[in-house]
Amino acid sequence: MSRPQQVQLSHGGGGREMNDFIHNLFFRRFENPLLKAEDAATFTLNGPVAMTTDSFTVEPLFFAGGNIGSLAIAGTINDLAMVAAQPKYLTCSFILEEGFPFSDLERIVDTMAEEIVPTGAQIVCGDTKVVPKGCADKVFINTTGIGEIVLPNVSASQLQPTDVLLVSRDIGRHGACVLAARESLRLESEIESDCAALWPIVNTLLNKGITPRAMRDATRGGLSAVLNEWCQSSNVQMRLDEQAIPVDTAVKGVCELFGFEPYDLANEGTFILAVPAQQAQDALSVLQVFQAQAAIIGEVTQGSPAKPILCSPWGSKRYLDFPVGELLPRIC
Amino acid sequence: MSRPQQVQLSHGGGGREMNDFIHNLFFRRFENPLLKAEDAATFTLNGPVAMTTDSFTVEPLFFAGGNIGSLAIAGTINDLAMVAAQPKYLTCSFILEEGFPFSDLERIVDTMAEEIVPTGAQIVCGDTKVVPKGCADKVFINTTGIGEIVLPNVSASQLQPTDVLLVSRDIGRHGACVLAARESLRLESEIESDCAALWPIVNTLLNKGITPRAMRDATRGGLSAVLNEWCQSSNVQMRLDEQAIPVDTAVKGVCELFGFEPYDLANEGTFILAVPAQQAQDALSVLQVFQAQAAIIGEVTQGSPAKPILCSPWGSKRYLDFPVGELLPRIC
Repeated sequence: MSRPQQVQLSHGGGGREMNDFIHNLFFRRFENPLLKAEDAATFTLNGPVAMTTDSFTVEPLFFAGGNIGSLAIAGTINDLAMVAAQPKYLTCSFILEEGFPFSDLERIVDTMAEEIVPTGAQIVCGDTKVVPKGCADKVFINTTGIGEIVLPNVSASQLQPTDVLLVSRDIGRHGACVLAARESLRLESEIESDCAALWPIVNTLLNKGITPRAMRDATRGGLSAVLNEWCQSSNVQMRLDEQAIPVDTAVKGVCELFGFEPYDLANEGTFILAVPAQQAQDALSVLQVFQAQAAIIGEVTQGSPAKPILCSPWGSKRYLDFPVGELLPRIC
Repeated sequence: MSRPQQVQLSHGGGGREMNDFIHNLFFRRFENPLLKAEDAATFTLNGPVAMTTDSFTVEPLFFAGGNIGSLAIAGTINDLAMVAAQPKYLTCSFILEEGFPFSDLERIVDTMAEEIVPTGAQIVCGDTKVVPKGCADKVFINTTGIGEIVLPNVSASQLQPTDVLLVSRDIGRHGACVLAARESLRLESEIESDCAALWPIVNTLLNKGITPRAMRDATRGGLSAVLNEWCQSSNVQMRLDEQAIPVDTAVKGVCELFGFEPYDLANEGTFILAVPAQQAQDALSVLQVFQAQAAIIGEVTQGSPAKPILCSPWGSKRYLDFPVGELLPRIC
C-alpha cells in the first residue's frame, strides 16, 4: 500500500484501511509484547495502583521544546508520578481531522514513542477516530495511564504546618512559550516549554528516602491553582517567599506584555512538592541535579483563611488567589 | 454561582471556574468513594486485568436509543466484557466546544451516570478541556477502563475448527439508526440503536459455565470486520448461514436505500461469540433470555484462505470481505 499523504475518513472507518493505518503508524512505533490487535490489553497488577486521564488539544501542535505528542506522554506520566506511582501502562486515543498531514502525524507519534522510553511505561492499547474536515482542529490526543504506587498517601490533603514547599525548576515556561508562539512574538531568546516526563526525578527522590506529603505538576492554573487547592484540601495556610520563586527573564517579559502573572501560567514538566522540614535540603539537592533552578519557595503554616500568602522582599504580603477567567485556552 | 447556560472557555482554564464546573457537573453525578479532586485515582488491583480506551465523536449526539454518553459507557464496558473482564474502573475525558449548551451536557452526563450502574463499574477520574468555537464539533468523550479478568485467554486467536459462532441479537442497528437520523429519514418504524453495556449478559454466560473462545462487539466495521479479524488471528475459515443472521426489516430497508450491507454496519451493543460446539445450545439459551433474536450463525472450519464464507439458502457461497472505504464517519 502506498503511504498516504493525508489522513482520510476511511482511516477511522473500521475496515481494511483503518487496519493498515493502525499497524503502519502505531504498532510499528509503539511495539511491545502487550500491544496486540485486540480491543483490550491484558496484564497483571498486584497492589495499590493509580489511574489518570488527560485529553490534549494544544495549539500550536508544535512548539519550542515539544509537541502535542510529548505533552500527551508527559502529562499522563506526571499525573501518576505526582502520587508516587511508577508509570506502567498507557493507552492513547487519537481524534484526527480529515486531511491532517500524515508527516505531522508521524512526527507526533515518533515523539510519543521516544518520550515514553525513559519512563519505563508502555503503550498497551489505543483508538483512532477520524472526523470530517472542520469537525476538529487537526488532532486531539487522549492518554490514560496506570501506575504502581511506590509510596502511599502522597496527597493534597496531607500537608502539615512546618512542611517546606519546593519547586522543581523555574515556572511559567509552557504557558509563556505557547503564548509567544501564538502571538508570533520575536523574542530575544526563544522560550522553551518545560514539557518533560517527571518520573525519573520523582523516582530519584523516592530512592533517596524523601517522603513527600504532596506533589503536583503545576499545569493549567499554574502554581496558584496548585497551592490554593492544597491549602483547601489540607486546611492550612502557606507563606511563600516571592523572591525565591524562580521565573526566567523572558517569561517575566511575556507576562508583563500580556498582563499575566507567572504564578498563573501553565507548566508541563515542573512540579511543586511539600516535604517534612528535615527533608527539605536533601530534596533540594536531588532536584538541583536535574534542574539548577529548583528552589525552596516557602512553608506550610497554620492559619485562616486556607490560602497561600505571597511575601515580597520589601515586607508586603498578599494572598495568591486562584486564577480566574479564560487564562489561555488550548494550552495543553 | 448561577448555573451557566453554555460551556465557556474558562470552564477548561484550570482556575476557579473550572473547579466549580467540575464539581457541579461531574462530581455530583458520578459520586463514589474513589472519585476525588486529585489528578489520579488510587485503588488496589490483584491479578490479571484488561485495559481499553475509546474516543467517541458520534454525530448526531442524541439518537434513538441513546446518546454519546451511553455510547461512551457502553463502548468501554463492552471492550472489557469481550475479554471476559469484569469492568471496575473508568476514566472519562471531555473535549467541549465553547458555547455547547449546558442542558445538553447535563443530559449526557446524567445518561453516563445511569448507564454505568448496572455494570458495577465506577468513574474514578476525569479531565475537561474546552476549545474555542469552531475547533471541535460540540463534544467528544474519551472513556478508558480497567477490569478484572474472570476467564483467561478469551481472544481472537483462540478459535478452533468446529467452534460454533453466535450473535447476541439482530445486527446493524446502530449504523442504520445514525444513518437514518443524519439523512432525516422518515421510516415507518424508527430504528433504535442497539447501544447497551454487555457486561450483564457476559457475566451470566460465564456464571453458567460457558467458556467462550472469543467474544467481540461488532462496532465499526460490523460483523464483517470482526469475523475477518478472527479468521486472520486464528488462521481458520468460517461457514456462515446467511439466512440465520438476524437483521431487522427496517435495517434491511436502510441498507438497500444506501447500498450498504448490514454485515458492515456498526453495532454498539451486539456481540459475536465463538464457543466450543457442545456449549452452543446453552450459550444460545442465555443470550435469548436477554434478546430473543440471538442466533447461531455458523461454525469455524479449517481451510484457506483465512476468511469467512457466507452461504446463501440457495446453496451459493461468497467470501464475506473486510469492509472497505469510508463507511460512516462519526458513527461512534
